[in-house]
Amino acid sequence: MNNQALDYIKEHEDVFKQQLKELLSIPSVSTLVEHQADCERAAEWLADDMRRIGFETVEVIHTKWHPVVLAEWMGAGKDAPTVLVYCHYDVQPAEMSDGWKTPPFEPTEKDGKVFARGAIDSKSNVMAQLKAAEAVIKTGTSPVNIKLMFEGDEESASENMTRFVEQYVDRLKCDVAVICDGSMSDREQPDIAYGLRGVVTMELEVHGPKQDLHSGHFGGTVHNPIQALAEIISKLHHDDGSVSVPGFYDDVLALDDEERAELAKALPWIESEWKDVAAAPHVWGEAQYNLHERIGARPTLEINGIRGGFAGDGFKTVLPGMALAKISCRLVANQTSQVIYEKLRDYIKKITPPTVKAELRLIEIGEPALIDRHSPAVEAARQAYKNVWGKQPHFVREGGSIPVVVDLQKALDAQLVLLSFGYKGCAAHGPNEHVYLDMWYKGMAITIQFYEELGTRMGNPYPNPPP
Amino acid sequence: MNNQALDYIKEHEDVFKQQLKELLSIPSVSTLVEHQADCERAAEWLADDMRRIGFETVEVIHTKWHPVVLAEWMGAGKDAPTVLVYCHYDVQPAEMSDGWKTPPFEPTEKDGKVFARGAIDSKSNVMAQLKAAEAVIKTGTSPVNIKLMFEGDEESASENMTRFVEQYVDRLKCDVAVICDGSMSDREQPDIAYGLRGVVTMELEVHGPKQDLHSGHFGGTVHNPIQALAEIISKLHHDDGSVSVPGFYDDVLALDDEERAELAKALPWIESEWKDVAAAPHVWGEAQYNLHERIGARPTLEINGIRGGFAGDGFKTVLPGMALAKISCRLVANQTSQVIYEKLRDYIKKITPPTVKAELRLIEIGEPALIDRHSPAVEAARQAYKNVWGKQPHFVREGGSIPVVVDLQKALDAQLVLLSFGYKGCAAHGPNEHVYLDMWYKGMAITIQFYEELGTRMGNPYPNPPP
Repeated sequence: MNNQALDYIKEHEDVFKQQLKELLSIPSVSTLVEHQADCERAAEWLADDMRRIGFETVEVIHTKWHPVVLAEWMGAGKDAPTVLVYCHYDVQPAEMSDGWKTPPFEPTEKDGKVFARGAIDSKSNVMAQLKAAEAVIKTGTSPVNIKLMFEGDEESASENMTRFVEQYVDRLKCDVAVICDGSMSDREQPDIAYGLRGVVTMELEVHGPKQDLHSGHFGGTVHNPIQALAEIISKLHHDDGSVSVPGFYDDVLALDDEERAELAKALPWIESEWKDVAAAPHVWGEAQYNLHERIGARPTLEINGIRGGFAGDGFKTVLPGMALAKISCRLVANQTSQVIYEKLRDYIKKITPPTVKAELRLIEIGEPALIDRHSPAVEAARQAYKNVWGKQPHFVREGGSIPVVVDLQKALDAQLVLLSFGYKGCAAHGPNEHVYLDMWYKGMAITIQFYEELGTRMGNPYPNPPP
Repeated sequence: MNNQALDYIKEHEDVFKQQLKELLSIPSVSTLVEHQADCERAAEWLADDMRRIGFETVEVIHTKWHPVVLAEWMGAGKDAPTVLVYCHYDVQPAEMSDGWKTPPFEPTEKDGKVFARGAIDSKSNVMAQLKAAEAVIKTGTSPVNIKLMFEGDEESASENMTRFVEQYVDRLKCDVAVICDGSMSDREQPDIAYGLRGVVTMELEVHGPKQDLHSGHFGGTVHNPIQALAEIISKLHHDDGSVSVPGFYDDVLALDDEERAELAKALPWIESEWKDVAAAPHVWGEAQYNLHERIGARPTLEINGIRGGFAGDGFKTVLPGMALAKISCRLVANQTSQVIYEKLRDYIKKITPPTVKAELRLIEIGEPALIDRHSPAVEAARQAYKNVWGKQPHFVREGGSIPVVVDLQKALDAQLVLLSFGYKGCAAHGPNEHVYLDMWYKGMAITIQFYEELGTRMGNPYPNPPP
C-alpha cells in the first residue's frame, strides 16, 4: 500500500472537497452556447491546478467546440508504465425549475453528499483522478507516468474526440488508458465494466398516397402507411424476442460458461434495478439469456419513436400520406454498424409490400467495445478495488455506449480499463444530482492503489517499453 | 314540365345570382366564436327571404350554438305530399393566407364560376332550394307542401341536430325528407347517393415501463410499447386486406348482383378519382370487392394517427413508456358503432401480450345510413335528374358520413333522398372554393322537376296521408 499518498489524501480531505465544490460552481454546460466562457473557465481552472501539482506540460487545446485539457507527468521514468486518464469536465444543463432543491451551481453539502450539477457526471471523477495524481506526485511515490486528458464535449456526444484522438495520437501514447466515467449499480458492491454496446440510429419512412386523404372517401382502398409501418415493425422480431433480421446475430461473439458465470454475479442488483426503474408489467426479450446478458452481451433493435397522421388531442379521420419510425440497434462486440444497417435495410426492402414505398435512412453510427478483462491492467484495477473496498468487484457489461472508448481502442496500442467510483442512484442528468463523499474519497484511494498495482505488474520487468 | 316555374328561374337568373353572392358575403363561420353574430345574420337573411317568398311560418330557432331556420309552406293542401328540405348555411373558416386568390367573403365571378367560402359547401345548395321553392310558390305551381330546415352547425359536426330533430319532430313531419349536401364526382354525369358510412373513433393506448427508459440501459429486456402497439395493429387485418376482428362483418348486408351491377356504373370515375387524388403506389383492400364497393359498401378499420417516443428532428435513443394510436372504423348499413367498438376492444384484449397493458377507449360514434333507392321519392329524384340533365344518374354509395341523415331516418317516418348539384372538384373546405353557375341553375331545375315528379307519383292517389 502506498501509505504516503493515502495519508496525503486524508490530510487534504477538506481542501480537496473545497476544490471539488469550486469546480462544481463553474457552470460548464457544453450544450448551451451561452456557457462557452464557463467551459473555458473550467478548462483553465483544471490547467492551473495541474501546473500547481507539478505536471510537466499542461495545455488547454482548443477544438471546434470546447477545449481539451492535456497534461503530462513523466517523472516515473522511461522504464515505468505510462497511464493515460480520460474524464470529462462538461455537464448537462440544469435549472431550478427542473426540480432542484438547491441551486445546481452552488454546491450544497448534506448528509455526506454534495449536491450540484456535475457532482456525479463527471466532476467527481475528474477530481478523484486529479487529486490521486497530486497525491502520488507530491509525495514522490508514483510508480507510473501520468497523462491526463479532460474533455469538454462529452455531453454533446464527444463529436470532436475521434478527430482529436487521431490528431494527438503521439502525445496520447501510453501503456494503459483509463476511462473514468459511468457509475456502479450498488453502493456496497464495486463493479468493473468491460463491455459497451455500440449504437446505430436510423429513420424508416413509409409513404402511401401522395397526400393525406379523407378516411371516409378512400378508407378500404389505400394501404394506410401507419398500418404498413406497423406491419413492417411487427416483422422485425420473432415471438421469442429475438431480432428476425437475417444475419443480425452472425458476428456476435458467443458467451462461454466462464463469462456467463462471472456476469451472473452482478445479476441480482440488475434485476432489482429493473424492477425499480423499468417496472414494466413483465420482463421481455431473449429468454435463453438472463437480464444482464440481454442488456450487455446481446444486440437489440428498438423503436425509439413513431409518428404519423393526427395523434394530438381530438380526432381527425385522416388517412395519412406517410408514417415514420426512429429505429436504433444496440450492438455488441464484433458487430459493425454499417453491416447491421445494410442487413436491416435489405430485409425491410424484402418485407415492404408493393402498396407502399419504404426507405431506411442511416443517421449515425457508433461501434461497440469489448475490453479484455484478463489484461494485466484490468487485473490491477480489480486488485485495487479489492484492496480498498475489501470486496472482489463484479465484472459487468454495460448496455450503453461511451464513444471515446472505441476511439482510444482504435488509435492506441494500449490496455484499456473502465473505472467508476460513483453510484447510479445519484441522479446523473437529473435534478438534485449528487455524489457520496465517502465513495469519492475511495475513488482516489483506488486510483493510487491501481497505480501501485500497475507498477508491480508492469514496471519490473516492463513488458511494453514505450518507443 | 313545370314551365312556369322554370321560366321564373330564367327570368330571375341575375337576381338569384346577386342574392347568392349576398349570402356568400356573410362570413357565417360556425366554428369560430367571433363569427357568432355573422351566423345569426345569415339565419335572419334567410328568414327574411323566406317571408318575402311567402312561407307561412318562418322561425329562427336558437339552439345551444347557432340557430336553425325553419319555414313551412302548406299551400299545396293537405292531400298533397309534404317535403322537408335540409341544408346548412354555416361554412368553414377561410383566410387569404390559406392561399385564396380573391377574398373568401367577397364573392368573385370568373369563367362561369363564383369563388367564395361556402360557394359549394353549402350555400349554393341552400340557395338552389330556396329559389326553387320561390319559383313554385310565386308561380302558384307547387304540387307539394314545402318545409325548409337550414342548419348553422354542420361544420361543427351537427352536434345539436340529434336533439333538435327529436324536439321539433312534430313540426318536421313530412312524407319525403331531402338532404341537400355533398357533391357529384363528375361534372358531366349526375349521381345519387343512397348509402353513407357511419364512423366510430377510438384511442388505443399501450403502456410498458412506468417511465421512458434509456434504450441502452434497458433495451432487450422491456417490451417496447411502440413495438407492442405495432404488433397489435398488424393483427387487425388479414393479409387480404379484410379486418380480422372476429365478428366484424357479421351484421354487414350482402350486396346482391343487381346492386353490384348498379354500383359498377359509377366505378370508372371512382377509379379515375383514386388515381388522381390518392395516387398510392398500388390499390389495396378486399380484392373480391371493387373500389366503389370497398369505399361505400364495406366497413373498414383505419389507423388515423400514431405517436410514441421521440419522433421529432434529431434522435433520442429512448425506450418510451407508452404509445398511442387513433383508430376509426367506417361502418356500413346494419352495423352498430357500440357493437363494433366492443368487438375490437375484446379482440385487442385477447391479442395484447402480458408484457404491456393496452386500453381501447371509445371516443365518438356515428351510425351508418342506407336509403331505399327504390322508394317513390328516390325514383322521382332519378327521373328529375334524367329530365334536366338528359342522363340517367348513377347510384353511388358514399364512404363518408352525414350525421343528420341518421337523425332524420330515426325520427321521421318519411322517405329519404340525398340530392347534390355541385362538383367534388370545387375545393370544399379549401382555398378558392367555388361553384359552377350552370350546375347551380340546373340544381334549381332539378328541384322543381323533383317536386313535379313527387306530385305525380304521390299526389293522386296520395299513399301516405299526413295525420
